[in-house]
Amino acid sequence: MIKAGIIGATGYAGAELVRILTGHKEVEIKWLGSRSYIGKKYASVYQNMFELVEGDCLDDQIGELVDQVDVVFTATPQGYLASVMKEAYLEKARFIDLSADYRFKDVDVYERWYKIEHPSAQFMKEAVYGLCEINREQIRQARLVANPGCYTTCSILTAYPLIKEGLIDPDTLIVDAKSGTSGAGRGAKTGNLFCEVNENIKAYGVTTHRHTPEIEEQLGYAAGRPVTINFTPHLVPMNRGILATEYASLQKKTDGSLATEAEIRAAYQKYFEKEKFVRVLEPGVMPETKWVEGSNYTDINFQIDARTGRVILIGALDNLVKGAAGQAVQNMNLMFGLPETEGLLMVPLFP
Amino acid sequence: MIKAGIIGATGYAGAELVRILTGHKEVEIKWLGSRSYIGKKYASVYQNMFELVEGDCLDDQIGELVDQVDVVFTATPQGYLASVMKEAYLEKARFIDLSADYRFKDVDVYERWYKIEHPSAQFMKEAVYGLCEINREQIRQARLVANPGCYTTCSILTAYPLIKEGLIDPDTLIVDAKSGTSGAGRGAKTGNLFCEVNENIKAYGVTTHRHTPEIEEQLGYAAGRPVTINFTPHLVPMNRGILATEYASLQKKTDGSLATEAEIRAAYQKYFEKEKFVRVLEPGVMPETKWVEGSNYTDINFQIDARTGRVILIGALDNLVKGAAGQAVQNMNLMFGLPETEGLLMVPLFP
Amino acid sequence: MIKAGIIGATGYAGAELVRILTGHKEVEIKWLGSRSYIGKKYASVYQNMFELVEGDCLDDQIGELVDQVDVVFTATPQGYLASVMKEAYLEKARFIDLSADYRFKDVDVYERWYKIEHPSAQFMKEAVYGLCEINREQIRQARLVANPGCYTTCSILTAYPLIKEGLIDPDTLIVDAKSGTSGAGRGAKTGNLFCEVNENIKAYGVTTHRHTPEIEEQLGYAAGRPVTINFTPHLVPMNRGILATEYASLQKKTDGSLATEAEIRAAYQKYFEKEKFVRVLEPGVMPETKWVEGSNYTDINFQIDARTGRVILIGALDNLVKGAAGQAVQNMNLMFGLPETEGLLMVPLFP
Amino acid sequence: MIKAGIIGATGYAGAELVRILTGHKEVEIKWLGSRSYIGKKYASVYQNMFELVEGDCLDDQIGELVDQVDVVFTATPQGYLASVMKEAYLEKARFIDLSADYRFKDVDVYERWYKIEHPSAQFMKEAVYGLCEINREQIRQARLVANPGCYTTCSILTAYPLIKEGLIDPDTLIVDAKSGTSGAGRGAKTGNLFCEVNENIKAYGVTTHRHTPEIEEQLGYAAGRPVTINFTPHLVPMNRGILATEYASLQKKTDGSLATEAEIRAAYQKYFEKEKFVRVLEPGVMPETKWVEGSNYTDINFQIDARTGRVILIGALDNLVKGAAGQAVQNMNLMFGLPETEGLLMVPLFP
Repeated sequence: MIKAGIIGATGYAGAELVRILTGHKEVEIKWLGSRSYIGKKYASVYQNMFELVEGDCLDDQIGELVDQVDVVFTATPQGYLASVMKEAYLEKARFIDLSADYRFKDVDVYERWYKIEHPSAQFMKEAVYGLCEINREQIRQARLVANPGCYTTCSILTAYPLIKEGLIDPDTLIVDAKSGTSGAGRGAKTGNLFCEVNENIKAYGVTTHRHTPEIEEQLGYAAGRPVTINFTPHLVPMNRGILATEYASLQKKTDGSLATEAEIRAAYQKYFEKEKFVRVLEPGVMPETKWVEGSNYTDINFQIDARTGRVILIGALDNLVKGAAGQAVQNMNLMFGLPETEGLLMVPLFP
Repeated sequence: MIKAGIIGATGYAGAELVRILTGHKEVEIKWLGSRSYIGKKYASVYQNMFELVEGDCLDDQIGELVDQVDVVFTATPQGYLASVMKEAYLEKARFIDLSADYRFKDVDVYERWYKIEHPSAQFMKEAVYGLCEINREQIRQARLVANPGCYTTCSILTAYPLIKEGLIDPDTLIVDAKSGTSGAGRGAKTGNLFCEVNENIKAYGVTTHRHTPEIEEQLGYAAGRPVTINFTPHLVPMNRGILATEYASLQKKTDGSLATEAEIRAAYQKYFEKEKFVRVLEPGVMPETKWVEGSNYTDINFQIDARTGRVILIGALDNLVKGAAGQAVQNMNLMFGLPETEGLLMVPLFP
Repeated sequence: MIKAGIIGATGYAGAELVRILTGHKEVEIKWLGSRSYIGKKYASVYQNMFELVEGDCLDDQIGELVDQVDVVFTATPQGYLASVMKEAYLEKARFIDLSADYRFKDVDVYERWYKIEHPSAQFMKEAVYGLCEINREQIRQARLVANPGCYTTCSILTAYPLIKEGLIDPDTLIVDAKSGTSGAGRGAKTGNLFCEVNENIKAYGVTTHRHTPEIEEQLGYAAGRPVTINFTPHLVPMNRGILATEYASLQKKTDGSLATEAEIRAAYQKYFEKEKFVRVLEPGVMPETKWVEGSNYTDINFQIDARTGRVILIGALDNLVKGAAGQAVQNMNLMFGLPETEGLLMVPLFP
Repeated sequence: MIKAGIIGATGYAGAELVRILTGHKEVEIKWLGSRSYIGKKYASVYQNMFELVEGDCLDDQIGELVDQVDVVFTATPQGYLASVMKEAYLEKARFIDLSADYRFKDVDVYERWYKIEHPSAQFMKEAVYGLCEINREQIRQARLVANPGCYTTCSILTAYPLIKEGLIDPDTLIVDAKSGTSGAGRGAKTGNLFCEVNENIKAYGVTTHRHTPEIEEQLGYAAGRPVTINFTPHLVPMNRGILATEYASLQKKTDGSLATEAEIRAAYQKYFEKEKFVRVLEPGVMPETKWVEGSNYTDINFQIDARTGRVILIGALDNLVKGAAGQAVQNMNLMFGLPETEGLLMVPLFP
């Protein structure tokens, strides 16, 4: 049994980790860290876990924690892990960080977009960006995995094959994303109250959302050069789910023709055919977030618009599963040599 | 491997059976019956099952079906199974009927409340009412299980111990129930459109809802005499979940005193302490439907009102799981000697 | 033009007052009080009012306010007005208090249920309970009106005629009420976050909700004797709307017979036929909250259950309008001799 | 009093016409046409209108209708008005058509996108496109107004000033739109059921939605040349509201510089400063659909992204008001010389 500790276990992503790990046969949760609820029964904070999880919430004593567990999940605010990480910890346990602290290679990008100083930038190079379908081999060896953001996982997986294969012009990429409200976390803010979100839709973080540079960095690796995009997130009155609608101009071939539907489909097949958790839907069937709710799947499809020479790509996932806790567990499975799908075969809940 | 057939596989309850059985290690689905979608790929009707369920929808040829499977689930409209059932079928396969056709012992009650003639009333006596926590032993032997209704499972489990132990006066029982909209089925009716249900709550079937006599019959067995109650269902703008708020006068003891909180809690413990799927919450914590969503749990608690001498009982379950498909699978597990919880340990999804 | 001041103008009830008064031809809002947003543009707190309301939020200087306005609305937390009220204020302006501070005649009841000391109980006797349909004449003369609670307005109007006419037994009355989330206010609490409320229903304040004694006091006046009831509120995933489902035993007449449908309907007609804002629906049509959304109407209907000798009464209103701000404006219209419906003829919004 | 007839009065747009006209001082509804509910009391189909609207639903006898009314509103399926229209009708009454039948000047465009033959194309030239803020003067004189679509009103108003002023490159325009479900109408289709829409978001009509050519035609007039765009609508789990997020490259000036924020704001001011129903929000405040719910407002704002040289434009309106019935009434006001805002000053409902 792998011993796991969670810091930030009472946020929504942390609670989803608890849900998934509770059903994982090879893992035992040894530490439920939650600064806000120290000493409280975990199941009294998340009553869905009543009779399923017995422990109390503990403080975030990471020094003590690394002695007790094999893997630490940090589902914490930006800057937390960066502020405490040291080499000694990485020698004792492997880390999967659900925050953005180690997602970038360039500390300047992090500090510019997050407006936080990074006190342990020396680990940024070592950290592996935990997008399993792209970086599987490096993840297996990693001591420190930077678990991708929810919007980014969806946005990147949806565009990656087409950029990697040179079928679209990366500089024309526009990502218009829509998210359920659990992505905003469990903090008590007026803007996240039921009455403010229900019967409402809005864009936020227009031109400034922090997932922008993360998408750009990863798609830049696919393109082989820096990529600059527009990314606009929207808040949707639902609990879970992200839908990314992406627009890009098809790349002109040397003969002036554009990529065909068959070529685009072939590109998706090339990268995702063997991927359990990426489902490229049949032609004409567009992803819906409800079809992946509660599961680790990302559904993808596309439509070419011959009139404009653009292709519209659409991806959907559950922001708390493949967009957070599910991918974290998928990373853990890779890191510990377990079957990659262990604990992650939850069938999507519909309706 | 147990071979299972589902008739009515494309209704919401049928689809939930597919979801649960897909994760059940001892069952293989051999027949996905759906008169509305014959010949269509099942996963094209429920895209959440894409790459998870391969078969096409088949017609309802029950005669052929019973030769191929060990167990038949009928998630069909009221009257369907009653109209086709015969002894020969029961000799070939075991039946779990999610409709009301065999839930009553008295055919008159069925015909009066359902306004349907019952052409195979001879099987009503044999049929076992599949409320697992109450009728576990008879279920094990049953050829034909009448799977309880969603409202009724919740309403009965919540009141059963107190009536059985004589702690409340059954004739004062009032059940005010609230249900998510999946209970109304997938039929395309104006009243179930998003815009009609969203931002709205209403009562329906006031004094006439068909689950009334079902609750009365079962609670009558507990009371040892006929029971007449009020039952009022309400439609709530959510997909899943039933909450039953029940009111009853505490029974006066011979010394004039009323049952105490300790006595009521003891009654619940007596019947449910060992039940995996019934969780009696800690004092003061009232059930919420979200805490059981997607799972087979029923959460229960109560509050005494000394001012009025009444007790308020509250129960919550997921109408598609413990209120339909989950309980059907629990029944199947009992009938086939499998661990009762097999395939049913889905952790509730929150948020 | 009547000059109005609002204290607590940035809560949901306060904002609804602003919405309604903005469309009221005889009123000018002179003071938008909001301790939380002092100095901020009101329309920046409620962007729906952009270009419609020009002022900034002001502090709660009630002494200054009463010199500037004819009427003060207090949409403030319990205990606020009680703590500042003095005779001098009442001599300068008329008050409509949307809190519970002056709803009771007996200060002990207030202090017991609200756990707040009442420092100005001397005004409780003078205050008029502002349920317009019941206390119209006293309201016209009142200096201080206690605007009823949302649940209470709905619960009382629905039961009042039947109790007043002796058609039901008040001691058997059970009120099972369901409310949209705006009733919980705009305070940033975890329990009111979108993800906690959406796809969920729960009871709260079981046996202890503060609207209980308010309903009891008013229905006691109708009964001519003290009345003790059960009242259970539930939180529903919608913004607006209250539905009260009420159960009571029909009163036995001297010949042992029970009230008939015609008699009950006649009782409702007697009290509400001429009431613009109470609509007794046609037989068999049960109220739905969506049918009154955004309007000042209360819809009511009932169903007799001959099997149990009970009648089920159902009432629906918009908690922010007839349950708060709309009724407050109706009270103001009465107090200032305006047409009672002025500014209140908003047609319900559907869907 | 202007006498109005509505054909299609029981669809959502028709019902919204009834709601608005009920509060309009200069209009009397003489005819409530609804083929589906002939002979039924209108208020029994829309119970929100109980005691507010007295009439019964009538058949669609347009020949009889034009003799009785001054203005006919057709809130009917595409192709209906085209199939019955004749010169004689236009001589007797003025028409405001909420369908697409007369929105295009080129019948080929209509027939290609709508797959319907147009039997009265001779009136297409005469018809005035009823976008009040753009075509005010022609509307005043029109006998036949083609009321714009919901998505199109929002999309066009949001982009119009920038295209008209040459600040953006029309060929780079991408409109990613999100709509509440009332836009899908009241037809009983599985896809519009509560459980299919709730907790879900999806794109639909990708590259093929019929509002595309309507936006292109109108923006083409602004650009002075044909414009081809991408338009992708999404279905959002809410009743009302459209949000259009639009992306376009800023036009390069002759000196290579791009339009500034001040220039863009000035363009919006130029066209909308005096417009009651278009609100250009303050810098940094992005439109939300809830802020316009139930009202005739369109809220607009924008954000320049210097990194990509694009501007993101965001518009919001209530699809049933400014996107349908409200704009129809605004057109009627113009056509009959009434104050343009008469009956349309409903304050947005929040929350």
